[in-house]
Amino acid sequence: MFRTAELGQAVPKQVFKTRARQLRQRLLEAQILLSRDAGFNVMIDFAGVDGAGKGSTVNLLHAWLDTRLITTNAYGPMTEAQRERPKFWRFWGTLPPKGRTSLNLSGRYSNPFLDRVHGRISGKEYVAELKRIQAFERALADDGMLILKFWMHLSRDAQEERLKALEADPEQAWRVTEKDWEHWEIYERFIETAERTIMETNTDYAPWHIVEGVDQNFRMLAVSQVILDALESRLPASDLTPAAGLPADNSEIDVADPLPERPEGLVTVLSTLDMSAKLPKTSYRQQLSQQQGRIHLLQRKALQEKRSSILVVEGPDAGGKGGVIRRIIPTLDARNYRVLQYGAPTDEERSHHYLWRFWRHLARTGKLTIFDRSWYGRVLVERVEGLASDDEWRRAYAEINDFEDQLVEYGTILVKFWLHITPEEQWTRFQDRKQTAYKRWKLTSEDWRNRSKWYAYEEAAHDMVKYTSTHISPWELVPANDKNFARIKVLETFGDHLEKALEES
Amino acid sequence: MFRTAELGQAVPKQVFKTRARQLRQRLLEAQILLSRDAGFNVMIDFAGVDGAGKGSTVNLLHAWLDTRLITTNAYGPMTEAQRERPKFWRFWGTLPPKGRTSLNLSGRYSNPFLDRVHGRISGKEYVAELKRIQAFERALADDGMLILKFWMHLSRDAQEERLKALEADPEQAWRVTEKDWEHWEIYERFIETAERTIMETNTDYAPWHIVEGVDQNFRMLAVSQVILDALESRLPASDLTPAAGLPADNSEIDVADPLPERPEGLVTVLSTLDMSAKLPKTSYRQQLSQQQGRIHLLQRKALQEKRSSILVVEGPDAGGKGGVIRRIIPTLDARNYRVLQYGAPTDEERSHHYLWRFWRHLARTGKLTIFDRSWYGRVLVERVEGLASDDEWRRAYAEINDFEDQLVEYGTILVKFWLHITPEEQWTRFQDRKQTAYKRWKLTSEDWRNRSKWYAYEEAAHDMVKYTSTHISPWELVPANDKNFARIKVLETFGDHLEKALEES
Repeated sequence: MFRTAELGQAVPKQVFKTRARQLRQRLLEAQILLSRDAGFNVMIDFAGVDGAGKGSTVNLLHAWLDTRLITTNAYGPMTEAQRERPKFWRFWGTLPPKGRTSLNLSGRYSNPFLDRVHGRISGKEYVAELKRIQAFERALADDGMLILKFWMHLSRDAQEERLKALEADPEQAWRVTEKDWEHWEIYERFIETAERTIMETNTDYAPWHIVEGVDQNFRMLAVSQVILDALESRLPASDLTPAAGLPADNSEIDVADPLPERPEGLVTVLSTLDMSAKLPKTSYRQQLSQQQGRIHLLQRKALQEKRSSILVVEGPDAGGKGGVIRRIIPTLDARNYRVLQYGAPTDEERSHHYLWRFWRHLARTGKLTIFDRSWYGRVLVERVEGLASDDEWRRAYAEINDFEDQLVEYGTILVKFWLHITPEEQWTRFQDRKQTAYKRWKLTSEDWRNRSKWYAYEEAAHDMVKYTSTHISPWELVPANDKNFARIKVLETFGDHLEKALEES
Repeated sequence: MFRTAELGQAVPKQVFKTRARQLRQRLLEAQILLSRDAGFNVMIDFAGVDGAGKGSTVNLLHAWLDTRLITTNAYGPMTEAQRERPKFWRFWGTLPPKGRTSLNLSGRYSNPFLDRVHGRISGKEYVAELKRIQAFERALADDGMLILKFWMHLSRDAQEERLKALEADPEQAWRVTEKDWEHWEIYERFIETAERTIMETNTDYAPWHIVEGVDQNFRMLAVSQVILDALESRLPASDLTPAAGLPADNSEIDVADPLPERPEGLVTVLSTLDMSAKLPKTSYRQQLSQQQGRIHLLQRKALQEKRSSILVVEGPDAGGKGGVIRRIIPTLDARNYRVLQYGAPTDEERSHHYLWRFWRHLARTGKLTIFDRSWYGRVLVERVEGLASDDEWRRAYAEINDFEDQLVEYGTILVKFWLHITPEEQWTRFQDRKQTAYKRWKLTSEDWRNRSKWYAYEEAAHDMVKYTSTHISPWELVPANDKNFARIKVLETFGDHLEKALEES
């Protein structure tokens, strides 16, 4: 069964770059359409030989796609709450809603598979376990879910080589555990069980895809292509035309700039920023990988010490929030961070205090959570657009301070960034988005209309900083007209905060 | 501060009965209005001297009110998941949504209070803790929540007497723990801290009510009256007129009976039931308390052995589901059971497989969950009303079997009841509901219209029994034209299942 995945297939760097660019763009568009259409959800499982790149493929998918629409579930040993319910409770509890995608590592196959490999259950018992998994997949697929399962393969020799290579790299050595070598010792039994598993559970509604895992480029393209094909075959063909990225409601976008005159005498904390701050491309490149490496190490330390961190990113539309976030995550392990974005509240959320939806998503200790917009919506957009009453947004400052106080008191490392741009820079970026196919979906007529309230937003941001930049959780105001400057500034500052907090502990 | 609650106030049985009936009816109506209006939520805390009846008052409130609209939270030692978040995470996570009520035992005051009593924190630290609680209450009250806090009081002598009386009763002795006596030893410090607590946190938006706890009748009336007054002052006055219970949409209710002729040749598993089964009132009374006592003991054993149980109650409108459930719970501890009713799915639920909303509410081990209607809605109402497609409800049988299989395999004791009545009996009960003020809210024009599909429902129920009454989780079909018979039958059968399962384990 695995012969076809032992051919030593590899993709040269240049070929990879070109194909990756195309694939990524189409994947992004498909993902956006999925999230708008909301007709179905997507669940993608990664299983296979240790060292075949399950984790790194998942990490790369996060970097390629819109990570706010993806959740990665890595199922470790059962928690207390999970042990107190039937086994599948944790899988039901982590299903993606319609429009979203989940990536699973060590998922529902993992425990029964290892039990079988180690002879803890009989062949018949294993088949019964697989039948249960099949019923689960069947029910979800019948309900519309797109299910894809990847088996990442390595030959016995390739696995040995890979594990040794990892061990030789001081940066990567920690990834290789004794268990990996144990699995390698019993490679034949491992593969035999894998064959049985795939034979029994390779269905039309939840197919397995065997991918050769030796070459990182090859496997990433192979996985991405399968995902893209599956998505495109499910999305309405008309939506996939080149202009599809353009939202239907942005017809207003060609009208004149609605930006008003700057009110006379308006001085805010933002107007004091040096908006000319710049960073040349060469220093950017060098500092980027340096800062990413630093955050990678610090985050690993935070995980060991069970210190959670929360990063809040706020700022005007097109201020570069997404770009900054995409520069933070590439060296992080997708198991240990999550990027959250909050749209309109669900009806369950609406029937609670506005902070409830943030409390409910607080991560376990050791994890990093990045909020692409946050609870500050209450004193920014909800204030300016009149969605919250005067009383509501005014008292929110104290409520937010109290909330953040509790986070910090608990030991969470909380860092808040305001990425500021000038209205002129925003105008340029909007024009650019109009021109670039795969950026078009980022531009809506609402963004356009928001320009007319630029100074109301600026005042709201000013008040926000005034009332919520406290000693324990200060606002970091970043001039972001120059993307390079802003990105390095955020990474550096975040690193400083992590370092300081970890030193103190 | 507590003098006024050491007067030895008591209410004679006859006075209690009369006042209780009136109070309960008005409370019920207010609770229904709250759930329909959905403008605010209610949080009620019980704290006080051990033995002053916190638990029993909560239990009685569940028996008096519509328990499906109440959740009781008893906060024990922190779970793993709770320890991995800031302290207030568990309080935020258990807030009632708008329209609902939560009753809290050993709530947010409990840990800091005991820390202070035992001198583990200083007076200043305690005040800081209280300030945090106050900020929490303030934020919720500002958002519209009705917050009531009861301090159940006993004098030192009364407490001693009460604990001794409990110990002398073999049925109740287990309730008295060493901790209770420890608290009694340091009564003075306990009361001093209570005074401080109430002084600091008795606010207009979250007031304390001190209630003398010696006499069960007195304290129940006192607590209920406070709740009722608070609810009525918040609900629109116009809704509280005597006719308010009558839903706005039942104007059709006076038209002719829409029940069709019974289709010729229709034979279902329900048509074989002996619908004349009856139980005389005297045997009913006797057996009721006997069966309740039995279930009380069995449920305590189940809790010790960490065996969960799930009770599904289905049947036609007015079949007596609520009445049966109200007969099961009076002797149970509200901490350990929950009655769930599922209305239209929320939008989060709609974006998942239909079974997701049931998985998400599976209780921890040892608990009893009663489903007043359940996942069988898929093959009953959703089938008959065309809310699920043919494919959807047909495949649901297998999905449900698989779901229940997992519950039973895990060790959950699962019992499913169908309470059957004849269409003639239903007609009589509808007429009765129209006449009785506090039952009127139970009757809607939808119930009326459903009669026109009586035989479609009967067929659906027949198929449901055919496909989902399995060896491991059989359906118990109960003729319910006679309420007494049905109630005893359900209690007895549930008890048998509990007993058998606990013997086997």
